Amino acid sequence: MNARAFPAALILFAGCATAQTPPPPAPTPPAGMQWLYGSGEGGASSIQAYHAFRDYVVATAQSRPRESVVLAPDATLDDPRMVPCGDRPLAVVLDVDETALQNLGYEYDEASNARTYDQERWNRWERTGANAVSAMPGAAAALNTIRAEGVTVIFNSNRQSANAAPTEAAINGANLGPATHGETLYLQGDVAPGSAKDPRRAAISSRYCVIAMAGDQLGDFSDLFNARTLSVPDRRRYATSPPFSALWGRGWFMLSNPVYGTGLRGTYDDVFPADRRWSDPGQGGNR
Amino acid sequence: MNARAFPAALILFAGCATAQTPPPPAPTPPAGMQWLYGSGEGGASSIQAYHAFRDYVVATAQSRPRESVVLAPDATLDDPRMVPCGDRPLAVVLDVDETALQNLGYEYDEASNARTYDQERWNRWERTGANAVSAMPGAAAALNTIRAEGVTVIFNSNRQSANAAPTEAAINGANLGPATHGETLYLQGDVAPGSAKDPRRAAISSRYCVIAMAGDQLGDFSDLFNARTLSVPDRRRYATSPPFSALWGRGWFMLSNPVYGTGLRGTYDDVFPADRRWSDPGQGGNR
Repeated sequence: MNARAFPAALILFAGCATAQTPPPPAPTPPAGMQWLYGSGEGGASSIQAYHAFRDYVVATAQSRPRESVVLAPDATLDDPRMVPCGDRPLAVVLDVDETALQNLGYEYDEASNARTYDQERWNRWERTGANAVSAMPGAAAALNTIRAEGVTVIFNSNRQSANAAPTEAAINGANLGPATHGETLYLQGDVAPGSAKDPRRAAISSRYCVIAMAGDQLGDFSDLFNARTLSVPDRRRYATSPPFSALWGRGWFMLSNPVYGTGLRGTYDDVFPADRRWSDPGQGGNR
Repeated sequence: MNARAFPAALILFAGCATAQTPPPPAPTPPAGMQWLYGSGEGGASSIQAYHAFRDYVVATAQSRPRESVVLAPDATLDDPRMVPCGDRPLAVVLDVDETALQNLGYEYDEASNARTYDQERWNRWERTGANAVSAMPGAAAALNTIRAEGVTVIFNSNRQSANAAPTEAAINGANLGPATHGETLYLQGDVAPGSAKDPRRAAISSRYCVIAMAGDQLGDFSDLFNARTLSVPDRRRYATSPPFSALWGRGWFMLSNPVYGTGLRGTYDDVFPADRRWSDPGQGGNR
């Protein structure tokens, strides 16, 4: 995801919480965590995404495409175009957190102690949490099949470059590897400072023809979706309209993450269209 | 979904809330609603599921399968088997709420007024909300393609049989129809009382070979997943292990719904495996 780069509103909220008495932990995990980490529904959704990813990559590897699924440096949301493939070897690019890995230890600690997100604690998690993760359902089998087809699996994460060794250990320990920093693992700080992933995608594209990408945030596909000028409704409209709508499940693969990230944003007016409101007629309207 | 049949814990909580001062509305919609109804990520996830659904149905319709994807009446989770197809015509079966339709008007009313789920209010919504819904992203195009292949599209919903006309209007008005009660729309009360969907699936299977199903709850695929004796971790294990794991994206299609339903359940111990815990080493461990 996008560096676990939280929406500004949530960061402000975290600031408020520390200035007051911290709230007691909720009696159960937040609904999003129940769905993502605990439910059959969430597990099924992940397996379904990885089945689609695997099937698409195996089919596409047979017929070498001319274009990658990485947007070209001069692309815009209104004029998108892809990097040409040339004769470079085939690769897929995946995000790590809540795309390939479930960060179970971190999220348990945060939820059960009613903590809010903290960049320094997350940094300690990157360094020491390698044994408290597991693979997203369906991920390990899909990546193994993809590698057996001769396609290189590359991770592009906003974890810190300084923590490369424990991140390699987390990925490899969850049977998702091999992840080798600088070869099949790109991290924040590797190519350019900051959480933008386009510079790393450009570096990967200079060596490989990227035939599929997977992520849980739109920023795992293009930084264009993270433009500050883009409203919440416009962002959804771009993602769900041509030409980008055609890519979902066909080159770009979305893992559902209702726990954190750029999808958890928006006012009532942002989230609910004005022409889809309803007034309860009340008991009198009930017969 | 499963009648919008909420987990018992949430129903109890709703009881508590009405006995006390109702809480003020949260300043923004709950995270799950932001993700499902407002985000590009949620929209992409829905389109991806419907792309997979459409592609699978088109391919499977070419080579008539011998078995449907509906479990036989004597199946168990440990000994599943499918209904044979015979020479019956092909159909797909979809849930309605948060599978084919986004219930925008209802959810806006509930969230912006800090209401908790209420069966009577939902019943009024079924009767009067047909104009305040929209199609899930990707659904309308997929269903049109599926019908053009000669496959019948049938809805199996836990909305009430008594509200068939406004439910037909909601589905047809969102360009997802035709939905005709008793033909291509099965509702609660049609075949047997209660929210179990297996009796309706059996009735549909007596007339059709069901080659794919879509839903946002495991109960949209088999009531066996709703057995009260099934723990939250066991339920996830069944859904994500063979033989059921092989069905996701290949006959059974899951729409991600972190807003309500049977996936939003479980204690910390249910949701987070005991062998994936982490203790923050604290600032002292930060170098």
